[in-house]
Amino acid sequence: MVHKPIKIVTIGGGSSYTPELFEGFIKRSKELPIGEIWLVDIEEGKEKLEIVGALAKRMVKAAGLDWKVHLTLDRKEALTDADFVTTQFRVGLLDARIKDERIPLSHGILGQETNGAGGIFKAYRTVPVILDIVEDMKKLCPDAWLVNFTNPSGMITEAVMRYGNWDRVVGLCNVPILCQKIASGSLKIPEEELFFKFAGLNHFHWHRVWDKTGEEKSSQILRDTYSNAESMAEAMEFVRKSAGESGNTNDSGVKNIPNISYLAEQVQNLGIIPCMYHRYYYITQDMLDEELENFAKGETRAEVVKKTEKELFELYKNPDLSIKPPQLEQRGGTFYSDAACELINAIYNDKRIHMVVSTKNNGAISDLPNDVVVEVSSIITSQGPVPISWGSFDPSPKGMLQLMKNMELITIEAAYTGDYGKALQAFTINPLIPHGKITKTLMNEMLIAHKKHLPQFKEVIEELEKIK
Amino acid sequence: MVHKPIKIVTIGGGSSYTPELFEGFIKRSKELPIGEIWLVDIEEGKEKLEIVGALAKRMVKAAGLDWKVHLTLDRKEALTDADFVTTQFRVGLLDARIKDERIPLSHGILGQETNGAGGIFKAYRTVPVILDIVEDMKKLCPDAWLVNFTNPSGMITEAVMRYGNWDRVVGLCNVPILCQKIASGSLKIPEEELFFKFAGLNHFHWHRVWDKTGEEKSSQILRDTYSNAESMAEAMEFVRKSAGESGNTNDSGVKNIPNISYLAEQVQNLGIIPCMYHRYYYITQDMLDEELENFAKGETRAEVVKKTEKELFELYKNPDLSIKPPQLEQRGGTFYSDAACELINAIYNDKRIHMVVSTKNNGAISDLPNDVVVEVSSIITSQGPVPISWGSFDPSPKGMLQLMKNMELITIEAAYTGDYGKALQAFTINPLIPHGKITKTLMNEMLIAHKKHLPQFKEVIEELEKIK
Amino acid sequence: MVHKPIKIVTIGGGSSYTPELFEGFIKRSKELPIGEIWLVDIEEGKEKLEIVGALAKRMVKAAGLDWKVHLTLDRKEALTDADFVTTQFRVGLLDARIKDERIPLSHGILGQETNGAGGIFKAYRTVPVILDIVEDMKKLCPDAWLVNFTNPSGMITEAVMRYGNWDRVVGLCNVPILCQKIASGSLKIPEEELFFKFAGLNHFHWHRVWDKTGEEKSSQILRDTYSNAESMAEAMEFVRKSAGESGNTNDSGVKNIPNISYLAEQVQNLGIIPCMYHRYYYITQDMLDEELENFAKGETRAEVVKKTEKELFELYKNPDLSIKPPQLEQRGGTFYSDAACELINAIYNDKRIHMVVSTKNNGAISDLPNDVVVEVSSIITSQGPVPISWGSFDPSPKGMLQLMKNMELITIEAAYTGDYGKALQAFTINPLIPHGKITKTLMNEMLIAHKKHLPQFKEVIEELEKIK
Amino acid sequence: MVHKPIKIVTIGGGSSYTPELFEGFIKRSKELPIGEIWLVDIEEGKEKLEIVGALAKRMVKAAGLDWKVHLTLDRKEALTDADFVTTQFRVGLLDARIKDERIPLSHGILGQETNGAGGIFKAYRTVPVILDIVEDMKKLCPDAWLVNFTNPSGMITEAVMRYGNWDRVVGLCNVPILCQKIASGSLKIPEEELFFKFAGLNHFHWHRVWDKTGEEKSSQILRDTYSNAESMAEAMEFVRKSAGESGNTNDSGVKNIPNISYLAEQVQNLGIIPCMYHRYYYITQDMLDEELENFAKGETRAEVVKKTEKELFELYKNPDLSIKPPQLEQRGGTFYSDAACELINAIYNDKRIHMVVSTKNNGAISDLPNDVVVEVSSIITSQGPVPISWGSFDPSPKGMLQLMKNMELITIEAAYTGDYGKALQAFTINPLIPHGKITKTLMNEMLIAHKKHLPQFKEVIEELEKIK
Repeated sequence: MVHKPIKIVTIGGGSSYTPELFEGFIKRSKELPIGEIWLVDIEEGKEKLEIVGALAKRMVKAAGLDWKVHLTLDRKEALTDADFVTTQFRVGLLDARIKDERIPLSHGILGQETNGAGGIFKAYRTVPVILDIVEDMKKLCPDAWLVNFTNPSGMITEAVMRYGNWDRVVGLCNVPILCQKIASGSLKIPEEELFFKFAGLNHFHWHRVWDKTGEEKSSQILRDTYSNAESMAEAMEFVRKSAGESGNTNDSGVKNIPNISYLAEQVQNLGIIPCMYHRYYYITQDMLDEELENFAKGETRAEVVKKTEKELFELYKNPDLSIKPPQLEQRGGTFYSDAACELINAIYNDKRIHMVVSTKNNGAISDLPNDVVVEVSSIITSQGPVPISWGSFDPSPKGMLQLMKNMELITIEAAYTGDYGKALQAFTINPLIPHGKITKTLMNEMLIAHKKHLPQFKEVIEELEKIK
Repeated sequence: MVHKPIKIVTIGGGSSYTPELFEGFIKRSKELPIGEIWLVDIEEGKEKLEIVGALAKRMVKAAGLDWKVHLTLDRKEALTDADFVTTQFRVGLLDARIKDERIPLSHGILGQETNGAGGIFKAYRTVPVILDIVEDMKKLCPDAWLVNFTNPSGMITEAVMRYGNWDRVVGLCNVPILCQKIASGSLKIPEEELFFKFAGLNHFHWHRVWDKTGEEKSSQILRDTYSNAESMAEAMEFVRKSAGESGNTNDSGVKNIPNISYLAEQVQNLGIIPCMYHRYYYITQDMLDEELENFAKGETRAEVVKKTEKELFELYKNPDLSIKPPQLEQRGGTFYSDAACELINAIYNDKRIHMVVSTKNNGAISDLPNDVVVEVSSIITSQGPVPISWGSFDPSPKGMLQLMKNMELITIEAAYTGDYGKALQAFTINPLIPHGKITKTLMNEMLIAHKKHLPQFKEVIEELEKIK
Repeated sequence: MVHKPIKIVTIGGGSSYTPELFEGFIKRSKELPIGEIWLVDIEEGKEKLEIVGALAKRMVKAAGLDWKVHLTLDRKEALTDADFVTTQFRVGLLDARIKDERIPLSHGILGQETNGAGGIFKAYRTVPVILDIVEDMKKLCPDAWLVNFTNPSGMITEAVMRYGNWDRVVGLCNVPILCQKIASGSLKIPEEELFFKFAGLNHFHWHRVWDKTGEEKSSQILRDTYSNAESMAEAMEFVRKSAGESGNTNDSGVKNIPNISYLAEQVQNLGIIPCMYHRYYYITQDMLDEELENFAKGETRAEVVKKTEKELFELYKNPDLSIKPPQLEQRGGTFYSDAACELINAIYNDKRIHMVVSTKNNGAISDLPNDVVVEVSSIITSQGPVPISWGSFDPSPKGMLQLMKNMELITIEAAYTGDYGKALQAFTINPLIPHGKITKTLMNEMLIAHKKHLPQFKEVIEELEKIK
Repeated sequence: MVHKPIKIVTIGGGSSYTPELFEGFIKRSKELPIGEIWLVDIEEGKEKLEIVGALAKRMVKAAGLDWKVHLTLDRKEALTDADFVTTQFRVGLLDARIKDERIPLSHGILGQETNGAGGIFKAYRTVPVILDIVEDMKKLCPDAWLVNFTNPSGMITEAVMRYGNWDRVVGLCNVPILCQKIASGSLKIPEEELFFKFAGLNHFHWHRVWDKTGEEKSSQILRDTYSNAESMAEAMEFVRKSAGESGNTNDSGVKNIPNISYLAEQVQNLGIIPCMYHRYYYITQDMLDEELENFAKGETRAEVVKKTEKELFELYKNPDLSIKPPQLEQRGGTFYSDAACELINAIYNDKRIHMVVSTKNNGAISDLPNDVVVEVSSIITSQGPVPISWGSFDPSPKGMLQLMKNMELITIEAAYTGDYGKALQAFTINPLIPHGKITKTLMNEMLIAHKKHLPQFKEVIEELEKIK
């Protein structure tokens, strides 16, 4: 039995998400005997760390808890003897994400910060850092669990397992939680009375839903809710209301993705429910049109988020604030941090609850090898997530899934090796990126733009700069 | 939502197990709104049906419940509109089992009523009957679940799925429950604080155990308990005591299997915990020696059980008895019927609990195809069992598992087709049966002995009788 | 042993390819004891059948052979007792292909007559007809081999096996032959001194090349020849010269595909050699630009071919012509018919030679199921093609291959069922088709345009026409 | 192109097989430009090396060839710059094999020198030596091919690939050649007019046969020849006669295995043809009875071979002998060395012929992983063997095959690690060894008996000796 107080370390502690994380821990304080929480950030993030850290301390104090909250730039000190390490850092901050989105759009191409050109570059920036963290963990806290919610969450988890040789890692995302809430809203049945099975990849999964009598409701949801944008908006509204968020009139959570409708026959024939990110693949052109409009207005998602974040930090500075401000939900990513707290709780207390996480496939999806990372319904135990079996997909989702998993594998191989040819393969098979001379043009431009955060591609980029 | 009272049908209702089944239902009466229970049997079982049926009625009454208990020989009437059908019949009764065990032993060969020559013949007798039941169910209760605990439970479940094309079936066994109790007894940790993963086939599975901190305890259990017979007996004693069965000084549950010790190095190297039936494969010769002794004394397991059953039915006749008599536990098979009740409860109420059942593999065990039946840790939901992923086995258990699964497949193919050559293949690859001329001698003798209950082999047997 | 003279039936016998087919048979007349050849066509093709049939008869006569050549519109009569049936028909003739290419291009989308929107519709038109032919064969010539070179050859072969339940079928294509010649030209090593392994799908395969010392030459070829268009043109020139085609200054064979260069880093990193059709996937945008130019000039490939064919038939009419005219090589598809003759010869004479054909995977490519059709290096025996094992692909080609195979599967399922939703899935996962509202617009337009040849979509199309 | 004269090294050059090897090379001297052949042996084999080496030199001279034949105890010198290395050594010589066979038989257990207890111990003795050789080859002749025919040939090949990380290795055996000859004899059709597909493991494979018209003949052969011992003897007689071996009235080649008949229904139902070694698994008991008789007479196979070898070496000493003496065929193993020469020839000259070899599965047998060694029909090219696809087995052979492959894997893991527990697993799942206390008794006795040649088990054996 673990008796000693838990030590939690959050890397990227200066993130605007931190208050939700603390709210999550506080909510579970009876079950989770936390001793100390370390918020770690880098020099550039120091100011934000101090603002949000101060708020976190006020939240803990207001909750009447005696947890020690440390703010530090010294990652090694923080990691020593940690029990759980959460990662929510963003290499290059939001400015890098703005490039991820705007550079492709400037060529009329979707950036897509998780699985498109933008997501590939986010992986390139993040993989070297996460592997460094893992090396530290091997030395300083070899029994700790790494709970990652830095995007692209699935690829980062895959990199940690495959190239970091670290299996005590779980990738998290809020999208499955939102999908469950939409299903509940669509069916007008409380979430806990539904049984869900999810399978796929991070931001690229499908799910099925059954009610308490064992009847499958997936087709009904596809027909009622996923076949047009208005009914989807209604389902979201129901979700918010039932969550008591009456004051908040915006779509919480799916803020990242325009609410453009799937083609009705497309999703109805599918039979299984796509996630909201599938819009990028199922209705690519319509999404691109929307994003090009935002691009023209200087309102790509990254730009909007940057503005929102600035406002949030203004709020956070208020010394009288000692709760998570409701405006945080505007940020997108709601439920993300709460999921992390729930996961930690489930592992620590061996709760065996159902969660959808990025973990090793191990046979859960028959169409993919055992040793790759998938995002899949799992039972969370004291030994980590145990996937439940999904079986095999029909040809249409299977083909897309197999393509994307291989795209992920080649991406992290390029991220790990810094090999230009591998990087070009990743762009070449990515379905959001047009192929031909433009592929190289785009990739080269992004390599140069992100130079500072791509040590593995240093020589490649220097060559490119010479040619240019 | 299902609102109407539940109708349960038990085929082989005259079985001595029936009181445990009723005890199980009564225990769960608050959760399970049962309306009627039909006990079905055949002409030959009529007397037993009436005895045990009368006891069942007394039990229901004593519990203050208004369930209607019907005794009938009319299977079709019983099945009409059933919600759950449990099967616990034994084609040819215990006399057939006596032949299954004694004929092989008369040649110095293990009979083994589940996976050996005896088990193969039990499958041959049972498959035609269960497929008949399934045909009835398709017409009379197409939404019902079939809960099978007629042995060989895994092969019967496979036959129902593969040749009956009926997927709403779950195979049950008490062996995993006993394994869990032994682990608990070995570790002196309550069962509910341990996390188990089981995988394999009916009477041929292995498991792993973790404690609440996520530490794996399998090796410790193998070393402490599975490496010698005395410590195993102690673990069993602990199990009984903690279950409040102080009065009962016998090994409950594993009565079927002599408590002979595994080779210490064998199980310790294995790393995963075998079930009690694995003794037949890991220490075949030692088991055979023991059984030959019993054979000589006229005390094969079937003979002992027959005697016990006779005594039980004498007890059951007592009109003052209105509970399950504790002597039933001598019978072997404890927890079997309770597992059936628990499964029905879990499906009906979508409880999502962990149970080990025979169900479609669907990727849970990577070393076997998706579409075969395995016995595996599953989450029980309103749509039935969902296996959790086990992954791949090491070479030694993998080889045995793959052999046995194929032995099962060829056995049920022979059971379905009545093909002599297929039947000979099953005997030829079964590791408990010696191969050569003796294989045919034994098989032919058993075919003739069981003639009455093997309609599919009718012509084959007539040919054999001519030659003879 | 087969002693009786061989009966060969060619469906689509009025095709401009027929003279090459006859040249191929005549070349092998010593090995192939042909008795009769039946050229079958439909009413609309009667005039062409008579022209080309007369030439075929003159060719046979000039070769001093006594084969009976029959021209007929009665397919059933022709098929009776056939030994080999070749299919080279084109449902809807070249006008349908013109639509397959021009409708997509009118929306700025590649048509691609084999694996793009055009190819999907060609499959829709062809599958009902080929399945009819198979039904006839089951009755009239149940031991015959079906040698298909109607495109999309791989999908047609898959449909014959999967929905026609006819396994004696081989799909053929001239692309692998051209790839081998290019390799030979690139290396300046005679083709027969090289060892090739091909794997993938029809018009979507990769290959590797070794010289006689066992050294792999794939990288060298990728670097020398596939990295720029001029060196590719030179390799082709070498091929032509060494084939004695000095008079013919055009690229024979790859006429269907503009000679646009791959990205050098892309193919060099790949390590295995793509086929010429991979250009559509690796440099989609560049191919589209080229084809849009042709579109504007009324010179899509189909339009050019139609013109060439017209000229060819003028030539064929010449009563003094009794050889295959060299101009046929302008047509594209050279080696196609010769491959068919070679395959028939290899099966008939159990020659066990290496050919690349569309056949059941059966483990040859580990990344795809056993039961799907792939285009793969095979040994041709009297029992048909036996694939040689390729193993597993690297992530980049693997992902594309798995996507495309699933696209093929969903396409032929839609072709067989006439299900609109399935058809939409095929368009949705096809990487050459943009996704969103445009997907339906394009598909609907093509459905209506091809109405006459899509009996399975009759009701769907009528609905569409009403809406319109 | 390779122009320099070929250097061949034979390890275990003092073997009685060496004259056949030289006969094979001489027969192919026109195709194989051999420069030098090095016969390597160890101190204990020096005398035999000199005898057989002198004969080899006389054979070369008599053939009018100028090859340099070197006899040496210096393996490193021999290996330097070798092109092909063949291995036919026997660690512990025939005395070790006598122990492999007699110790098990003394307990009433089959020894079976390839896949039984004896074969497992032969692997234990051989693996350390072959891995040493591979280490030498990495340094001294990194481009050479290793052609192994030391038994157990499949396991040794697997060890070389898996633990030696050396892929340029091919395992050879004469059993497939004999199977082909029996089929030819049974059908009275010349071997070259038949098409064969083999798949399985060394001494544990099945095959199918087709005639030139594509008709499968397997069932006919099973019925005519494999269903009783007399017809099998006749087929062998035919084989010998057609091979011009009129003078030799014994069964050549299958000398290792008593000609006991399979059960007719067993093999006929199987549909595919077992190899002669399958008798040990299909009719174990009958084989054991036969071998126990030989054991009693001091005539186990090893003892007979030892005597034959002695006589052979007497013959070899004759300075007038300059051909392979026909008596060598009495030895068993005919065609073995010839197969090695044919393989070398096929690789060197890229002949692309069909041979059955032990090589990496790579998808050829769908029921086994890609990366294990199987014995399978392959095309032999300059880059080595390329397996042709077999597909999947039916349940009965599949189960046995999967068991045996895993038995092989655990055996070589034990051979590599010297782990007692692993060794016990190998014995535990081997179907020829009874399980229980006897398993350890037998294994311990064999470990001690072979102590001298089992360096990897040194500590284990010392422990055993203490206890004893």
